[in-house]
Amino acid sequence: MSFVPGLEQVVVAETEVSFVDGENGRLVYRGEWAKDLSEGHSFEEVAYLLWNGHLPSAAELEVSQAVWSQQRELPQEIQAVLDAIPHETGMMSVLRTAVSALESQAYAYPPTVEQAAAITMKLPTIIAYRYHRLKGTTPVASRSDLGHTANYLYMLRGVEPSPVHVRALEAYLILLMEHGMNSSTFAARVIASTRSDIVSSLTGAIGALKGPLHGGAPSHVMNMLRGIGTKDQTEAWIRNKLESDGRLMGFGHRVYKTTDPRAVALRELALRLSASDPWLELAVHVEEVAIRLLEEYKPGKKLYTNVEFYAAAVMNAIEFEEELFTPTFAVTRTVGWSAHIIEAAQGRLIYPDAAYIGKLPAAAAGATTP
Amino acid sequence: MSFVPGLEQVVVAETEVSFVDGENGRLVYRGEWAKDLSEGHSFEEVAYLLWNGHLPSAAELEVSQAVWSQQRELPQEIQAVLDAIPHETGMMSVLRTAVSALESQAYAYPPTVEQAAAITMKLPTIIAYRYHRLKGTTPVASRSDLGHTANYLYMLRGVEPSPVHVRALEAYLILLMEHGMNSSTFAARVIASTRSDIVSSLTGAIGALKGPLHGGAPSHVMNMLRGIGTKDQTEAWIRNKLESDGRLMGFGHRVYKTTDPRAVALRELALRLSASDPWLELAVHVEEVAIRLLEEYKPGKKLYTNVEFYAAAVMNAIEFEEELFTPTFAVTRTVGWSAHIIEAAQGRLIYPDAAYIGKLPAAAAGATTP
Repeated sequence: MSFVPGLEQVVVAETEVSFVDGENGRLVYRGEWAKDLSEGHSFEEVAYLLWNGHLPSAAELEVSQAVWSQQRELPQEIQAVLDAIPHETGMMSVLRTAVSALESQAYAYPPTVEQAAAITMKLPTIIAYRYHRLKGTTPVASRSDLGHTANYLYMLRGVEPSPVHVRALEAYLILLMEHGMNSSTFAARVIASTRSDIVSSLTGAIGALKGPLHGGAPSHVMNMLRGIGTKDQTEAWIRNKLESDGRLMGFGHRVYKTTDPRAVALRELALRLSASDPWLELAVHVEEVAIRLLEEYKPGKKLYTNVEFYAAAVMNAIEFEEELFTPTFAVTRTVGWSAHIIEAAQGRLIYPDAAYIGKLPAAAAGATTP
Repeated sequence: MSFVPGLEQVVVAETEVSFVDGENGRLVYRGEWAKDLSEGHSFEEVAYLLWNGHLPSAAELEVSQAVWSQQRELPQEIQAVLDAIPHETGMMSVLRTAVSALESQAYAYPPTVEQAAAITMKLPTIIAYRYHRLKGTTPVASRSDLGHTANYLYMLRGVEPSPVHVRALEAYLILLMEHGMNSSTFAARVIASTRSDIVSSLTGAIGALKGPLHGGAPSHVMNMLRGIGTKDQTEAWIRNKLESDGRLMGFGHRVYKTTDPRAVALRELALRLSASDPWLELAVHVEEVAIRLLEEYKPGKKLYTNVEFYAAAVMNAIEFEEELFTPTFAVTRTVGWSAHIIEAAQGRLIYPDAAYIGKLPAAAAGATTP
C-alpha cells in the first residue's frame, strides 16, 4: 500500500459516531442531521446522543442534567495547578495541562460516558477560572439552574447572558461538537487504542487542536470581520485582500467539496438573529460579497464558506476575545473526542508502519550485525 | 482503499529517523545499527545522532553535553505543579502533566533540536523530584559532571551508581530510544502535523505510552522474573504458567517476525555482565528454558524473546521499582519522539477519513436537509 501524504481519504477507522459526507455537504451525528440538532436541541441533549447513541427521553435528560451540572466544580488540586502556571501561558496550553492533571482513579481505563461527562462539564470552569485569574477578577461560581451553554457565558461574564447569545453559542457548540476523523480526534483514538485512559487521549486531542492548521482559523476570520467593520467597507476590503495575497480566510475546506453544512446552519441562524446582532448581520453580507468576488478573481474554483467563517461571526456576537476561540472549540469537541475514545478503547492497537527513506549502514558494518 | 484494523503495515509516513526491519530483525537509527550504538556510545551521542542525522564529532559532543547538562533543572512553576498533583497519581500521569506545563515561549512552534534537548534533559529530573517527594526524601540536585544516564541513577539514589548499572541502563536507553511508527510516535506526529508545539506532541506521546498495550509490558516480565526468583525454579514456574493460561510475557512482537535486535543486544550485554549481576544471569537462563518450553507447548509457532524481556532484567538489575519502568521508557523515547516531531512539523496535516457504520437519518428528515 503506497504512502498517502496527510493520509487524505485513507480510512483509518470504522465509526458509529458521525458521518462527514464531504461530497454532498452533509453531517450526521449517530443517525441525526447535525443541522437539525443545532436548531432545536440543547448542548446536553446532543452530548447525550453522541455518547449514548440515541437522543435522551425527558426523564433521561432530566437525570443527566442533574448529575452533570454537579460536576462543573474544579477539584482543589486543579485550581492549584492553574494557579502555578505562569500568566503568559496561552489558554490552550493551560487547558491541556489542567485536563492532564485531572488524572485520578475516577478516570482510569476503560473510558466511560460518566468520565466523559465529568470532564466535559469541567472545561468551561477551567477556562472561566483562568480567565478571571488573568484579569484579576474573582472566578464566578457555576449556576446549576443554567444549562451548560448559558452557564459557560455566565461564568465568564458574571451576568446572565441574553437568550440570543445563548442560542447563537449553543448552535455553534452543537455544530462543532463532532466531525469525523479530523487530526485531534484521530490522535485521541490512537492514544485510546493503547488502553491508556480518557485523560491521556483528551490531553493529546487538545494539543492537536492547538495547532493553527486545525483549531486556529476562526481568529483569522474574526480579525477579517473586525477589519471590515461595516457593510459599506466590505467590497473594498475583500478586493484589497484578494489583490494583495489572493487568500481569504473562512472559505474552502479539505473535506467539503460543496457547502459546509455547519456554515449553512449557522448562516440560517445568523439570518434569523441578524436584527438582534450587528456581527451576524455583517457576516451574512460579507459572505455574499466574498462569494461573488471569489468567483470574479478565481473563476470556476468554487470556494464555499466554511464553518470557521460563521464561527467567527458568533464569537464576535458574544464578544469572545480571540484567546477564547480555540478553547471554546475544545469545550464542545471534547464531547466528540470522548465518544471516539470510548469506541477506540475497544478496538485494535493502532500501530502502523513507515517507509524509511534515510541512509542504510555501510555494508561492512551490516555484515557483522543481524 | 479498504480499512485495515490497527493500520497494521499501513505506511502512514516517510521518515529518515529509523528503519524497523521486522522481517529481518534489524533496527537502524539514521544509518547506524542500533545494536552497535548500544555497545559503545553514550545516551547523548545517540540522541545527537537521532536529532541531527549524524554522530557528533568530539567537539560537537563536548559542546552539546555542556549545554544540555545545564538544562536539567526544573523551572519553579514545574515544581509547583508537581507539588500540586495528589500523591496517588501515577508517575506517567505526573510526567504527562509536568511536560504539558513546560509550555512557554521557549517551546513555541516550530519544534527544534534545542527544544527537544531541553525537554529530554528535564524528564529524569521530573521523575526523580516526584520520586523523592513521594518518599518524603529531599530531591537530589543534578551533577553536571555525570552523563545523562549516570545522573538519572544518581538523582534517584543519591549515590554515584556502579559502572555496571550505568552500562546496563545506558544500553537499554539507547536500544529503546527510537522505534519507527509505534502508537506514541504516530500520535506525536499527528499532533505535530497541525503545527502545534513540541510540548503538545510529547504530551500526547506520553499519554499513549501510558497505555498497557504500548508501554506497559516490562512490569509483567519483571514480575515473572521475580516470581521465578532463582534458576532452579525456572522450568517448574514456566510449565505452570503455560499450562494455566498458555501465555508468557516477554515473547513475541507485532513487528518482529524473527529475533528482536534489541533483545539480542541486551542478551549479549546480560551475558557479559552476568557475573556482576544475578538478575542478568537469571534472565539469560529463563530465556533458554522459555524458548525450549514454548517450542514444546506451541510447536512451530516460533516465539522470539522481545525487548521487554531483557528490559525487565535490566530494570531488576538496577533495582528500579515497577512504577519507574514506563517513565524510564519515556525518558529515552522522548528523543525518538522529538526527532519525529521535528520531521512531521514540516509535513502535510494528517487528516484521514473514517468509514461510517452507524445509522442514517430517516428519509423524511433527509428530504428537508441539504
